[in-house]
Amino acid sequence: MYNFSYINPTKLIFGAGQIEKLKTELPADAKILIVYGGGSIKHNGVYQQIINALQGFEYLEFSGIEPNPHYETCMEAVEIIRREQINFLLAAGGGSVIDAAKFMAAAALFKGDDPWQIVEQGLSIESALPLCTVLTLPATGSEMNGNSVITRDADRNKLGWGSLKVYPVFSILDPETTYTLPPKQIGNGVVDTFVHTTEQYLTFATDAKLQDGFAETILRTLIAEGPKALQTPRDYNVRANLMFASTMALNGLIGTGVPQDWATHGIGHELTARYGLDHGQTLAIVLPGALTVLREQKGEKIAQCGRNVFGINEQNIDTQIDKTISAIENFFEEMGISTHLSQYGITEEAADAVSARLAERGWLLGEKQNITPQMVKTILLLRK
Amino acid sequence: MYNFSYINPTKLIFGAGQIEKLKTELPADAKILIVYGGGSIKHNGVYQQIINALQGFEYLEFSGIEPNPHYETCMEAVEIIRREQINFLLAAGGGSVIDAAKFMAAAALFKGDDPWQIVEQGLSIESALPLCTVLTLPATGSEMNGNSVITRDADRNKLGWGSLKVYPVFSILDPETTYTLPPKQIGNGVVDTFVHTTEQYLTFATDAKLQDGFAETILRTLIAEGPKALQTPRDYNVRANLMFASTMALNGLIGTGVPQDWATHGIGHELTARYGLDHGQTLAIVLPGALTVLREQKGEKIAQCGRNVFGINEQNIDTQIDKTISAIENFFEEMGISTHLSQYGITEEAADAVSARLAERGWLLGEKQNITPQMVKTILLLRK
Repeated sequence: MYNFSYINPTKLIFGAGQIEKLKTELPADAKILIVYGGGSIKHNGVYQQIINALQGFEYLEFSGIEPNPHYETCMEAVEIIRREQINFLLAAGGGSVIDAAKFMAAAALFKGDDPWQIVEQGLSIESALPLCTVLTLPATGSEMNGNSVITRDADRNKLGWGSLKVYPVFSILDPETTYTLPPKQIGNGVVDTFVHTTEQYLTFATDAKLQDGFAETILRTLIAEGPKALQTPRDYNVRANLMFASTMALNGLIGTGVPQDWATHGIGHELTARYGLDHGQTLAIVLPGALTVLREQKGEKIAQCGRNVFGINEQNIDTQIDKTISAIENFFEEMGISTHLSQYGITEEAADAVSARLAERGWLLGEKQNITPQMVKTILLLRK
Repeated sequence: MYNFSYINPTKLIFGAGQIEKLKTELPADAKILIVYGGGSIKHNGVYQQIINALQGFEYLEFSGIEPNPHYETCMEAVEIIRREQINFLLAAGGGSVIDAAKFMAAAALFKGDDPWQIVEQGLSIESALPLCTVLTLPATGSEMNGNSVITRDADRNKLGWGSLKVYPVFSILDPETTYTLPPKQIGNGVVDTFVHTTEQYLTFATDAKLQDGFAETILRTLIAEGPKALQTPRDYNVRANLMFASTMALNGLIGTGVPQDWATHGIGHELTARYGLDHGQTLAIVLPGALTVLREQKGEKIAQCGRNVFGINEQNIDTQIDKTISAIENFFEEMGISTHLSQYGITEEAADAVSARLAERGWLLGEKQNITPQMVKTILLLRK
């Protein structure tokens, strides 16, 4: 196990009917900006629950956060935050809305020239407005971490950044809010959670028994509950297990003291920036290819995943690895998320374009930072 | 899954050589009281590492915290804390030392008549001094929670209390500090961790897949690594896995949203208070008896534990339960901790005495609060 430090100050408030806790968790002098997306919270009752809980508080609203939230949109909100002296942000939605609110929280107090520097240069921020979340789409784990991914629309630049200062003060997770999610969003969310987990788990073996066992628990939970969420949308326990799984997959815990490999996310972000694919779709495409190309380096852990997650027990290590990678791909398809570029109408051209973009960035990907642009090309050609 | 709220603000700093981080984690104006036990930290190098890290800080020392720390001893320290205007406590040791420091932190700022009220009446405290820990004995999880157990020596009253205010600000966990622990302390620590876990897991089934899987991971880790710690004391990964397991077993996570049953601890505390047994010893005695008496209520989860933790797969449910309880008992014995009262020279009299004491307290034990004093007697008679 590697040395590590771990802290996660976010308070989780979990369960049916918990949105009303806003009223006791928010400070009395909060002047709130409610940040949300395209308005689905107005159809599923979440908006009304929030408004009911906020009686007696001062608040404004900012809607229209897009998937893969734009820097440009966030900056409109920042202007309102500054002008109206907002002192607490409430993000109601999924990862895009929460990521956007994190950027607003940092940008509003940023003293430099252009808050985009926080994202592009990874500038360490000194302070941020406090924020809380009402999660409606389990997927990114953003409700219990300090990570955020923002896209600058002007040049289609999609980048991640993070800070301890933008961990939500508290996050309310009511599984019932996910009952009305469309199947595609459930599939994307399960794939995203699955891939977050593998990126902290399918590396090389370090005898970290807790982290491995926790990661395997999350993966088994997704495999057991994901298809049920598609089949029986109003099963509370299914939704509760999926929601808690997505939070635990990326709140830092399973990644403590172990190697990590965020190559699939890195490559996936470029596919989204260039072709507009959903985040989960890009991950479903890339992961099986990345595991195939890196099968030697990751072989021991892929085999372990096969045994402990999928119950695959082949004597021959190559067969074990092949079957495990196939099982992962099949699971993504079972969740309704296609795993090949051609299924989205994207040609081989993507392999060259994405590897060129990554070469330009000069990033070293993978747990051994040994994934070259040429390997990225190979990965994507496998997924045509 | 039940509704829950969860927060854990403690920062973990984990790994070899991390004690030196005290120097960067402590505030510059800290006036520190180092709290420790019988001096083992002076023999294993931990004391010297702490002193080296504290160069430039103002500090005093308070040693002599006993196992099952006494209220009376803590109050001596509180007098020093108040007189010397100590503003940060550093607990160096295991659960007893950390629990004592938590009580000191709360008692030093207590405004009522007698700080014992915090323990006996469970008074909610308004504030506490900040504290940090250097853990040397993985067992109680006290390094990452707000719990504390204090014994008033005058009347042999051993009671637990807790507050969010006494979570350590940070805890340093260096697995190398555990290399020199005597086998009995390793055994006690592993048993304590095992029983903490079962008390949040062996209740009734609630389809909480994450919590169950995390608990099973901790139990499997203890079973795999515990005996190795006895056989090869200087295996870093073994010690790292055990240390992280004991923290994760009682930092609140696996107990979120599920029923809990702290009967074994409750009964065990009375055995310690009356007969002076080690905490781990009392748990090793009580748990197999408690599971036997509550085998109907807990049957489904005991059987699941057998399958997922011990690899026991019997068709007949009764055989499955019997074999699982035996496997738990055998594991405790393998860790060198005897599981019957007679092995400690204690007679059947204990069954009457402890059940009478619990009747007097009027506590309702068990996840269904249905364990009567008569059942406690039956449990202990099974363990004579």
